[in-house]
Amino acid sequence: MSTEVISSAPAIRTVKYTAKHALEPLNAEEITGAANLVKSVWPSQTDIHFKVVTLHEPPKADVIPYLEAEHSGRPLPFIARKVFVNYYIRNTNRFHEAIVNLSNGTVERNVRLGANVHANGDGDEIVAIENAALADEGVKAELQKLQLPEGAVVISDPWIYGADGVDDDNRMYQCFLYLRDTQNPNELDSNHYSLPLPISPVLTTDNMRVIRIDRLPTGADNTITETKPWQFRPVNEYIPEAQQLRTDLKPLNVLQPEGASFTIKSQGLSNIIEWQKWSFRVGYNQREGMVLYDVRYDNRSLFYRLSLSDMNIPYADPRHPFHKKSAFDLGDAGAGIMANNLKLGCDCLGSISYLDAVLANDKGEPFPMENVVCIHEQDAGIGWKHTNYRTGRAAVVRNRELVLQMIITVSNYEYILAFMFDQAGQLTYEVRATGILSTQPIDDGVDVPFGTRVHPGVLAVHHQHIFSLRVDPFLEGVNNRLVYDEAHALPRSDWNPHGTGYEVHETVIDKSGGYDADWSKNRIFKIQNAAVRNPINGKPVAYKIHAPPFQKILSDSDSFNYKRAEFADRNIYVTQYRDGELYAGGQYTNQSRGGTGVRSWADRRDNVRDEDIVVWVQFGINHVPRIEDFPVMPCEILKVSFKPVNFFDKNPALDVPPSEQSFNKSVLVNNAQQHAQPDGAGEAKVGENGQVCCSSKL
Amino acid sequence: MSTEVISSAPAIRTVKYTAKHALEPLNAEEITGAANLVKSVWPSQTDIHFKVVTLHEPPKADVIPYLEAEHSGRPLPFIARKVFVNYYIRNTNRFHEAIVNLSNGTVERNVRLGANVHANGDGDEIVAIENAALADEGVKAELQKLQLPEGAVVISDPWIYGADGVDDDNRMYQCFLYLRDTQNPNELDSNHYSLPLPISPVLTTDNMRVIRIDRLPTGADNTITETKPWQFRPVNEYIPEAQQLRTDLKPLNVLQPEGASFTIKSQGLSNIIEWQKWSFRVGYNQREGMVLYDVRYDNRSLFYRLSLSDMNIPYADPRHPFHKKSAFDLGDAGAGIMANNLKLGCDCLGSISYLDAVLANDKGEPFPMENVVCIHEQDAGIGWKHTNYRTGRAAVVRNRELVLQMIITVSNYEYILAFMFDQAGQLTYEVRATGILSTQPIDDGVDVPFGTRVHPGVLAVHHQHIFSLRVDPFLEGVNNRLVYDEAHALPRSDWNPHGTGYEVHETVIDKSGGYDADWSKNRIFKIQNAAVRNPINGKPVAYKIHAPPFQKILSDSDSFNYKRAEFADRNIYVTQYRDGELYAGGQYTNQSRGGTGVRSWADRRDNVRDEDIVVWVQFGINHVPRIEDFPVMPCEILKVSFKPVNFFDKNPALDVPPSEQSFNKSVLVNNAQQHAQPDGAGEAKVGENGQVCCSSKL
Repeated sequence: MSTEVISSAPAIRTVKYTAKHALEPLNAEEITGAANLVKSVWPSQTDIHFKVVTLHEPPKADVIPYLEAEHSGRPLPFIARKVFVNYYIRNTNRFHEAIVNLSNGTVERNVRLGANVHANGDGDEIVAIENAALADEGVKAELQKLQLPEGAVVISDPWIYGADGVDDDNRMYQCFLYLRDTQNPNELDSNHYSLPLPISPVLTTDNMRVIRIDRLPTGADNTITETKPWQFRPVNEYIPEAQQLRTDLKPLNVLQPEGASFTIKSQGLSNIIEWQKWSFRVGYNQREGMVLYDVRYDNRSLFYRLSLSDMNIPYADPRHPFHKKSAFDLGDAGAGIMANNLKLGCDCLGSISYLDAVLANDKGEPFPMENVVCIHEQDAGIGWKHTNYRTGRAAVVRNRELVLQMIITVSNYEYILAFMFDQAGQLTYEVRATGILSTQPIDDGVDVPFGTRVHPGVLAVHHQHIFSLRVDPFLEGVNNRLVYDEAHALPRSDWNPHGTGYEVHETVIDKSGGYDADWSKNRIFKIQNAAVRNPINGKPVAYKIHAPPFQKILSDSDSFNYKRAEFADRNIYVTQYRDGELYAGGQYTNQSRGGTGVRSWADRRDNVRDEDIVVWVQFGINHVPRIEDFPVMPCEILKVSFKPVNFFDKNPALDVPPSEQSFNKSVLVNNAQQHAQPDGAGEAKVGENGQVCCSSKL
Repeated sequence: MSTEVISSAPAIRTVKYTAKHALEPLNAEEITGAANLVKSVWPSQTDIHFKVVTLHEPPKADVIPYLEAEHSGRPLPFIARKVFVNYYIRNTNRFHEAIVNLSNGTVERNVRLGANVHANGDGDEIVAIENAALADEGVKAELQKLQLPEGAVVISDPWIYGADGVDDDNRMYQCFLYLRDTQNPNELDSNHYSLPLPISPVLTTDNMRVIRIDRLPTGADNTITETKPWQFRPVNEYIPEAQQLRTDLKPLNVLQPEGASFTIKSQGLSNIIEWQKWSFRVGYNQREGMVLYDVRYDNRSLFYRLSLSDMNIPYADPRHPFHKKSAFDLGDAGAGIMANNLKLGCDCLGSISYLDAVLANDKGEPFPMENVVCIHEQDAGIGWKHTNYRTGRAAVVRNRELVLQMIITVSNYEYILAFMFDQAGQLTYEVRATGILSTQPIDDGVDVPFGTRVHPGVLAVHHQHIFSLRVDPFLEGVNNRLVYDEAHALPRSDWNPHGTGYEVHETVIDKSGGYDADWSKNRIFKIQNAAVRNPINGKPVAYKIHAPPFQKILSDSDSFNYKRAEFADRNIYVTQYRDGELYAGGQYTNQSRGGTGVRSWADRRDNVRDEDIVVWVQFGINHVPRIEDFPVMPCEILKVSFKPVNFFDKNPALDVPPSEQSFNKSVLVNNAQQHAQPDGAGEAKVGENGQVCCSSKL
């Protein structure tokens, strides 16, 4: 990557910025200040197209003592406040990376990035691409051939171009075209994905010009036909007005009459959440969305930083131009900037708090986003139970969870991303994939083995969703290790004469690299602190990782897809910590070449035993569409959990108060009449001393 | 298995029994009637020890037309009402199997079962074994050597003996002994599992005599020492009085002000549940607990019968007597008889209905069990969502689920077993393992690779939990097939020049057998009806199976454990349907030899392609105890899901009404003040026409 350094101009002025904490996201003043400083190194009429204006997180070596001071109430050491900026000179390919130091008002670094390094998209740009594509004379001429009905409305979804090494050095977008319902073209929310068109313009983004118009194969093979008149197809709508809605669903409300159990302490734009012995700081940025810092349980440190690092969605159709459809939704667009506004009562149920964010627009101005994260409790069923069969006395507690949730819309797809905490020291990251499949046209009577017909004329191609969760542990200290346990059957011997014995053995991982799950051995990865021992059984304190299995990226190892999605070939990567190594697919994913992500860092073969390590947990699904996934798919749910192992001295949820009717206020539903009894009717007797009320008979 | 047939006595009288449906569980009259008929073939003073008195389900060939008549409102054909009975002549080993025909008042079959075929335990027997063990003079003498403090109370947990082929033809129980807290011996609910003793009496159950007193190895090897004075150990209590309970958990109530959305139509002791287009009949019996019959969605048939078939829990310690610890909790004891009474407000949250059951005691008398199944709805987060980024309009629905839940206590362990239904045609079976680890004594300073020390002096040995769910499909008809899909990368070629293409191919399973998952190929099993095609894409209607991976049984293939747990070596078994093949581990599991379960049936290599098939889905965990699992473990959750694939013509949850604040009534929690706003404050604006209220900004 060649760079061209522009000397930094002298500071214009030093402004005192108002961040409350070194890890707090940039506030509006800081965004504006950083943008101004960047502009100040250029001639004054230069139109700067800002792509990223985000906190440049301080070095961990500075943050650790800062957090120690914070937790022990000492004065906070000084840490320079820095901003990471990506920008173009507007309407050119001159792409830059800058570091702005707000504390001393300087631009510390300002380099032009070289060939094949491109920026993410941004909202205004996506709209401009769509407009340019549809205004292009060549595209209009091609659309003419479709002989669309009067008043038909064509929609263009710009897609990242992908990479295949074929004349792809320029920054381009591949637009996929769709039709709004021809019988209802004024319905702005018509599901155009159910009416895909066989024409796909390609634009270069420096000049917003259509450089090529691809025609899409619509049969079973590579054949591209001349654009023919469009054959009428019915639309397939998801909006509620188009449905015969169910009328028999009764309301279900979640009430917390005494309020919620969590507290939120705001420090500027970051928030410290405390709940049931958990404490952590929530941040937010354009690329990762929610980030958790300084996660502790009962004031024992667990994680330095937790975030979704990226996701890759490669598609299975080998034909041009689909062969290069491979999205990196964080690096190519940004989870934070694509977050939904979670208005009360729709997305989150119960007693809800919301967090707002401030990001930046393409002019470097602050761009406020409200309600991007919702926080609430939920009941997750029974937490633990035991009944003594001799006495019939049951001890039972419910599992209350804390949920921090955001929802991102990436054109057609939605992802619901949540961190969840329970009362037994367990932390879970949950992803729900929903929204609309990416579609392309297919001729009638054609079936292909790389996709599913989900509507007349509509093919949904198979694709993989591969997520990478970046886990920067701080398990009772900065030096941790990654180990795995395996269970092995013992051979027959005098020691094991009946062939039933088995043992569990632990292997320590010494060197950075990629590692896989192996259920045939019950391989479980754990993050440990070997220097801190459980007081009862002497084992190192640890947290184990429960992640679901997934088929690794199917693109072959010589492919651009594989080289770019450096995380997608392993269940686990572990690297030695280095500042700035945040994104598993590399810093710049758009039309990337690979070589700058987690696989490359792991190839350093650094020592990771009793070191400052980072663990990257991959998980995902191979999405083979079924017709039930259209026109919008029911959520597909994936969870990664972190559970304590010999970290505590007993079940950490033992002190949760017993589950009792006086607290829970359940209601007996009378079968015959089907309406709820008034509160109190049909209740179990609660003992005078608040005894656990359940008994069992055997 | 040799049998001795006893000729059936002539009918004493014909009583008209009152069952409403051929699949309804036996009612009290029928249990009494069947028991009387069995007694009637013996001399009148014969003391019959009843072990099982349960519905002998009619042949499927009779039930299918019966259900068709039921669903089309025609008169129901006659089906003889039969009862399956197991019994001993009390205090002998003479174990019998009988079939009683209540419709004509005859005993149709009455055979004595041969060697190595033994009955399950029963509640009164377990208590008698415990008493006999503790009253035995030899046991008392051995306990004397412990020199326990004054007033100490010893508890005995009888365990199934297991099988190892070493002098194990008699029916025996292995008692594990524990101590109640010596400083609080009057606490009846003291956690004796935290104070295990090194003495283990073995009893034969025909005469309730101690035949052997095993001493347990407590070191790292096979060494058995003389019983030494007991060294004081602290107890580890789970009851709430012993905890410093949290005081900061605020109540969370689930309200359904208009009642629940499900209806329950009782027919005698069975119940027809209808909810959100689902309909099914719930039965209940001693061995399986809850059974679902005739499961339909929108009146399209899906499953003939669904039930937990058995579970096997083999332990890892190779030393005597632990090598033979391998429990079959359904066959050895019975899920139905061990179910908890789910009193309102403790186990299930919200608007709850309960189902009761009637089983039989060891005298053949009806034994009513109340509240064994709870039924309620729950909110499971967002069902689906899409936001049109151009307009900001979101369409979102919540996922409401119906839950049928029971909880069983098997001595120390609990299992929470639930069937869950959602609004997108998905059915899930969920198991939560909780309760108390099985423990044994260990010397200080000793570590072993087959267990974890969870408390001073307490070893919890590794063990596997392997469950088998019996799935008898009826997907749009009785003839179904089991197939699997795999995703394969395409090789490089002109067709796939960039190495990114992949295809999904389906393989049909022709012959019965065991089959495994393979995530490297994304192998997904589906139950299909090849004769019924999706109207849009022509694919056969199907339901796919999502089951988590698990390490197969580690006991080697020559071991008794392996031979007995016939289901535990494969993710999937598929067999051709035969009446009576219900239990994957065989009809009689207690001290069994194997050869009578699903592996043996599958070995027939019957045709299963477009046949009446049964699919057995195995799942489980290798439980490597951590200290957080003691003194009671936080629930470990396992789920198996069945999802429609090309069964519908679009997302079946599309017609769920939009998620709106007027329906959900969420409440904004004010961060600064931490109490809930009164209803209405902070609400999002809901459009006049009840429009979906959410918008998002990009």
